[in-house]
Amino acid sequence: MDLLARARQLETEGRSVVHLEVGEPDFATATPIIDAGIAALRDQRTHYTPAVGIPELRQKIADYYQQRYGLAISASRIVITPGASGALQLVLSALLDAGDEVLLSDPGYPCNRNIAQLLAIKTRAIPVTTESAYQLNAELVDAHWHKKTRAVMVATPANPTGTLIPEQQLNALYQSVKAHHGHLIVDEIYQGLVFEADDRTALSLSDDVIVINSFSKYFGMTGWRLGWVVLPEALVECVDRMAQNLFLAPPTMSQYAALAAFSDACRSIFDQRVDEFRRRRDYLLPALRELGFKISCQPQGAFYLYADCSELTTDSFSWVQTLLEAEGVAVTPGIDFGEYRANGHVRFAYTRPIEQLEIAVDKIIKHVNCNI
Amino acid sequence: MDLLARARQLETEGRSVVHLEVGEPDFATATPIIDAGIAALRDQRTHYTPAVGIPELRQKIADYYQQRYGLAISASRIVITPGASGALQLVLSALLDAGDEVLLSDPGYPCNRNIAQLLAIKTRAIPVTTESAYQLNAELVDAHWHKKTRAVMVATPANPTGTLIPEQQLNALYQSVKAHHGHLIVDEIYQGLVFEADDRTALSLSDDVIVINSFSKYFGMTGWRLGWVVLPEALVECVDRMAQNLFLAPPTMSQYAALAAFSDACRSIFDQRVDEFRRRRDYLLPALRELGFKISCQPQGAFYLYADCSELTTDSFSWVQTLLEAEGVAVTPGIDFGEYRANGHVRFAYTRPIEQLEIAVDKIIKHVNCNI
Repeated sequence: MDLLARARQLETEGRSVVHLEVGEPDFATATPIIDAGIAALRDQRTHYTPAVGIPELRQKIADYYQQRYGLAISASRIVITPGASGALQLVLSALLDAGDEVLLSDPGYPCNRNIAQLLAIKTRAIPVTTESAYQLNAELVDAHWHKKTRAVMVATPANPTGTLIPEQQLNALYQSVKAHHGHLIVDEIYQGLVFEADDRTALSLSDDVIVINSFSKYFGMTGWRLGWVVLPEALVECVDRMAQNLFLAPPTMSQYAALAAFSDACRSIFDQRVDEFRRRRDYLLPALRELGFKISCQPQGAFYLYADCSELTTDSFSWVQTLLEAEGVAVTPGIDFGEYRANGHVRFAYTRPIEQLEIAVDKIIKHVNCNI
Repeated sequence: MDLLARARQLETEGRSVVHLEVGEPDFATATPIIDAGIAALRDQRTHYTPAVGIPELRQKIADYYQQRYGLAISASRIVITPGASGALQLVLSALLDAGDEVLLSDPGYPCNRNIAQLLAIKTRAIPVTTESAYQLNAELVDAHWHKKTRAVMVATPANPTGTLIPEQQLNALYQSVKAHHGHLIVDEIYQGLVFEADDRTALSLSDDVIVINSFSKYFGMTGWRLGWVVLPEALVECVDRMAQNLFLAPPTMSQYAALAAFSDACRSIFDQRVDEFRRRRDYLLPALRELGFKISCQPQGAFYLYADCSELTTDSFSWVQTLLEAEGVAVTPGIDFGEYRANGHVRFAYTRPIEQLEIAVDKIIKHVNCNI
């Protein structure tokens, strides 16, 4: 985050910066959703909703699971939340007590770890490699399960690696968590942003998998602060009560606007955007490999490349800083995502158009050649 | 909350219910704010903002403190949050560790206690009476300070009592907290909704008082989920980092809409609403007294009356239930706000028009007469 601040400072000083560090797509929210938001405001939808969200939106999401994934999920199991962050807070608060432990991957999304710690929940970040697609698996869970461990959290597609958990691996991981009488939490906030592989949901494994999702990424609604969680029926009442206390309710107009996100018109816009992300990846991935970055695990989703830069530097943090200062290209150092081999990795986010990515690659070539 | 659910169930069964239990005013958001929200959406304000909020809104709030309260507060000390609940979470996380204790009043707003507990922070609810205007004071803080106590939280105007903390009492309380090297957190979410007394802010006491506020009540923006906190300069960086992790950012369109809340046009709408709340209180307070409720501490703000019903019942929880079932009037039992003399109290919210209050009073008369 200091890096982001420095990038902004350079810009206010008149420097141009290519942003490959930003985890937010460059697209604005699709017009049908904006129009629905405007209509909601015109209709004076300005009061609180139920803490678990409006019934219409819970039903729309249930229908979406049916139509897109062929799964019958009762709307009563779906709780609308203020972003996926809100969902994670509710889930961790409902499942775990202070001092309990949750297993995560290293590298992984840092906010998940930090949210847990703010709730006095312990986190154990387990080093993962390309061997398991940078993901946890049953063997790792078995090896690291501990008497205070209560839950495992994975993300598919993942940040920072863009990798999915293969179906069999996820199934074995789920069986392992069950054998330990724990909870499996699956972060699917990049669901839908998937290229070659099948777009799946872990809800197909069992009704007791807990799935967190968001309107921010595939649905392109970052600033609206809206997410959801699918829970086992038995947990809903507890999560409802916690949501009443923690948040009162998710933003009302965002909920009414999100009703429009499930239309065919929006689906077509979202799918064009997925195509665009694929084109960006297909440009950036070989370009970075040519530059000496090793990306041995093909990223299949989200909009990130997690690159081994150990042939270019032994200290990715300094390298990232000098790249920004010298060339005005902002990328994220591995240390932001964990400790394991963090010095040998950087993350590239392809949330900017290909023309910007091309400029970035030219600048990185220059930087790499200067430092040989 | 079970009571609210029961009230809704009765309505779906075709019964009419008068709602004196709802802590949300009946007014929709003022038109200039809705128009600003629509304009923000048209301008595609759909991306994340900084975690601490957009600079324009932080500055507007700083200007508001200057213009309305004659206080120079730097915009850099103001952090925009997802509702006052989000503000409280940030403040407690920034100031306290798991196991630390915060002192609150009994009766008090139950979510504050519950949010603290979800963060593994201990709460001690101190019985307060009409003698201290149902508020904490220096003597109570001194008497209850404990080796794990780190902070005191008060609300002025307060929920459920509608009472303010008199200026001298608040000043002495602040001095006491300082003498114990603790933090004073003042919930001012009902600021502006004040009748006879001066509308003040605890920020006038010192730069190290922490003040939580909200766009929900005076500004009439409940469903937009927007609040703010004013912090000592030294705490801002820590709270910024926590906000990045916990929430990413407050809702974007709500922030742009809220810019319009400080116009003269809105001020005039808000002040008319304050007049309306005063008229409702001036109707309901004597009517309830006539019925046998004791309200010895004149409520000066918010939109609540906390009434001693011990001459009517020894069990306010049952009384409230039978009132709802028999007459279709929903009020809140004392137990929702604490334990101290809870069985002898109920809360009336005057968030509905006077005609509704009149119907409620007639029905309560009938109920009281039936039960003599």
